[in-house]
Amino acid sequence: MGGMTSAPPRGFPREEFEARAERARRLMVEDELDALFLASEQQLRYFTGFDSQFWASPTRPWFLILPYVGAPIAVIPEIGAPGMAATWIADIRTWPAPRPEDDGVSLLVQVLGDLPRRFGRIGAELGSEMVLRMPITDFFRVRELVAPLEFADATPLLRQLRGVKSPAEVEKIRHVCRIVSAAFEALPGKLALGDTERQACRAMRVDVLQRGADGSPYMMGASGPGGYDNIIMGPGERVLGAGDILIIDTGTTYDGYFCDFDRNFAFGRPSDAARRAHEVVYRATEAGIAAARPGATTSDLWRAMTEVLEAGGSAGNNVGRLGHGLGLQLTEWPSNRPGDDTPLVPGMVLTIEPGMEFAPGRMMVHEENIVVTEDGCELLTRRAPPEMPVIG
Amino acid sequence: MGGMTSAPPRGFPREEFEARAERARRLMVEDELDALFLASEQQLRYFTGFDSQFWASPTRPWFLILPYVGAPIAVIPEIGAPGMAATWIADIRTWPAPRPEDDGVSLLVQVLGDLPRRFGRIGAELGSEMVLRMPITDFFRVRELVAPLEFADATPLLRQLRGVKSPAEVEKIRHVCRIVSAAFEALPGKLALGDTERQACRAMRVDVLQRGADGSPYMMGASGPGGYDNIIMGPGERVLGAGDILIIDTGTTYDGYFCDFDRNFAFGRPSDAARRAHEVVYRATEAGIAAARPGATTSDLWRAMTEVLEAGGSAGNNVGRLGHGLGLQLTEWPSNRPGDDTPLVPGMVLTIEPGMEFAPGRMMVHEENIVVTEDGCELLTRRAPPEMPVIG
Repeated sequence: MGGMTSAPPRGFPREEFEARAERARRLMVEDELDALFLASEQQLRYFTGFDSQFWASPTRPWFLILPYVGAPIAVIPEIGAPGMAATWIADIRTWPAPRPEDDGVSLLVQVLGDLPRRFGRIGAELGSEMVLRMPITDFFRVRELVAPLEFADATPLLRQLRGVKSPAEVEKIRHVCRIVSAAFEALPGKLALGDTERQACRAMRVDVLQRGADGSPYMMGASGPGGYDNIIMGPGERVLGAGDILIIDTGTTYDGYFCDFDRNFAFGRPSDAARRAHEVVYRATEAGIAAARPGATTSDLWRAMTEVLEAGGSAGNNVGRLGHGLGLQLTEWPSNRPGDDTPLVPGMVLTIEPGMEFAPGRMMVHEENIVVTEDGCELLTRRAPPEMPVIG
Repeated sequence: MGGMTSAPPRGFPREEFEARAERARRLMVEDELDALFLASEQQLRYFTGFDSQFWASPTRPWFLILPYVGAPIAVIPEIGAPGMAATWIADIRTWPAPRPEDDGVSLLVQVLGDLPRRFGRIGAELGSEMVLRMPITDFFRVRELVAPLEFADATPLLRQLRGVKSPAEVEKIRHVCRIVSAAFEALPGKLALGDTERQACRAMRVDVLQRGADGSPYMMGASGPGGYDNIIMGPGERVLGAGDILIIDTGTTYDGYFCDFDRNFAFGRPSDAARRAHEVVYRATEAGIAAARPGATTSDLWRAMTEVLEAGGSAGNNVGRLGHGLGLQLTEWPSNRPGDDTPLVPGMVLTIEPGMEFAPGRMMVHEENIVVTEDGCELLTRRAPPEMPVIG
């Protein structure tokens, strides 16, 4: 066990939540919205601080209404009242859930109907990378019953708000990046030829908990002779033998905030092709980090990495992008891909994630996490070693 | 570390998936559906065996189309092709995702348009306890482009299918119940006065991993003097002192299948009121287990438990039900509540979860997991001790 890293305080001061709500209200005016209608774990946590693992149960919907003037209103199942009362939210309306015949619908209709009106439009999580966390038939009923009020897509507003992290948010991500960096550095000492992918990932899961992380919603492990063929399946029961390359990629959290990065390990002496591929993705990562500064775009990051990958013999990859935002979710807007063109601004937290297929069915992927600063970027992870650690 | 319990095989034989598809096709005829249109982690896993943690990323939607005749069709992001090709699914269509301007929409329209037609209706996850895991604006586009094909709610069909578990599914739940039972039994030896809720939950998280569980999407801990005021928040930094009662409730998984049960612990000598309350919920659990047999309904279970709770001084509780289904999700249909009235049949896996408020702001909740058998039920968890373990 590796000793706890000193941890930033949990939660946020009330002022941070008030500032988030105030920024949202200003954006609502620009987008001609009278209120935000939010139903997902991450939006409720962002605006209220409500921190519960109970979202793992799909039975009950939860709602937060943030009007363009006045206090936010939580519309939630009775079971959540004590927890919501411990946040800064004062206006809490509950119903006895589960009640499938009316799980919040009539209460929502009443609350939405009483809102101050200006544009007649309510912003909701309707767009890309969003999921409306409620039964869709209930959404249709609410929509019908509040007409002529209309629902509009609040995705652009929510991206703008959450895409730039506060210093306190960055500190939580930095903390979990430190914990996981230390665990990755300690891992070779715990692995041996003959281990399975699952054993390797389990050792990581246990170690990050013991170092102070809250959990690992994502702890992927994939392997193969001289490279792996994907980065989203596994771990499985595959036994790691000489010549294998293992990748472990993890989304581990502290106080709700994710890191998302990976490391590669060679079992026995790696093939020359695998060593070269690792060197290429390592250098592509350097290029991505060097390109990250205010004024550059996500497409610039993609281009800087792609030049190195293509010069290094990449046959492309199936991931569709070379990194993305992260924060309260494992992956958030924007994407490092051509056509995304999001301008970087200080406070954006991104993964730099070059990957390539270097032989048929053999991939090499690398990943680090950064925060954009006033004049460049800061690496939040401890940089991977330039050469893969060799096990056995 | 407690040694691994011998584990059932991972995955299922191809025949089990074929049988699930065939049962679904028969129900589709009854419900006048030409196909199922599925988009969530659990439905895709149920029908295909596709097992990836990548669902933690909200960026890409995934789809499975199961027509009333013919083979299922996976419509998925390119990144998932190698993983899906390793399942029994042969017809896999991919698009280069993320591509926010067309994330599967045109491909879906083509696949749905080519389906054999009979009723002109496609069943989707539109109802209670369901979430449509795709951008809702994309769903609206698909719906418009496939008209006159209509989308209908497939919730009743999916409940009927997944509500009865196969012997192989039950064996996975039994296995994780055994692992967590052993960890709960070992926990008192690891706790001391002065620990925090978070430390107690972390010790459980580590122990269940070391005993062979895959992870704990839910590991809740709440405490208070003589009782706790909720069962969904926490763990927090609260220090456990003499007179406190701690509840830990966990949804831990093996090969995708959940257990969901809790245990209570007394720190120092428990108050008489807390001891009595624990005795009441313990006896209510016995009553629930005794009532569980084919022919009884979920409302009967509720009534059997409620009689004991009310005789024991319950002032009700805010949970809204006294147990529920479980399987690939922490909570599944049905609910043990008045008005649910679901008839129990062999193979249903349920939690028996009586809880009560026994003083203002003080709850006591208990929970075990059962499977309904031909002539009663089998307890999947190892029964909690009749008296709370005392720490310190």
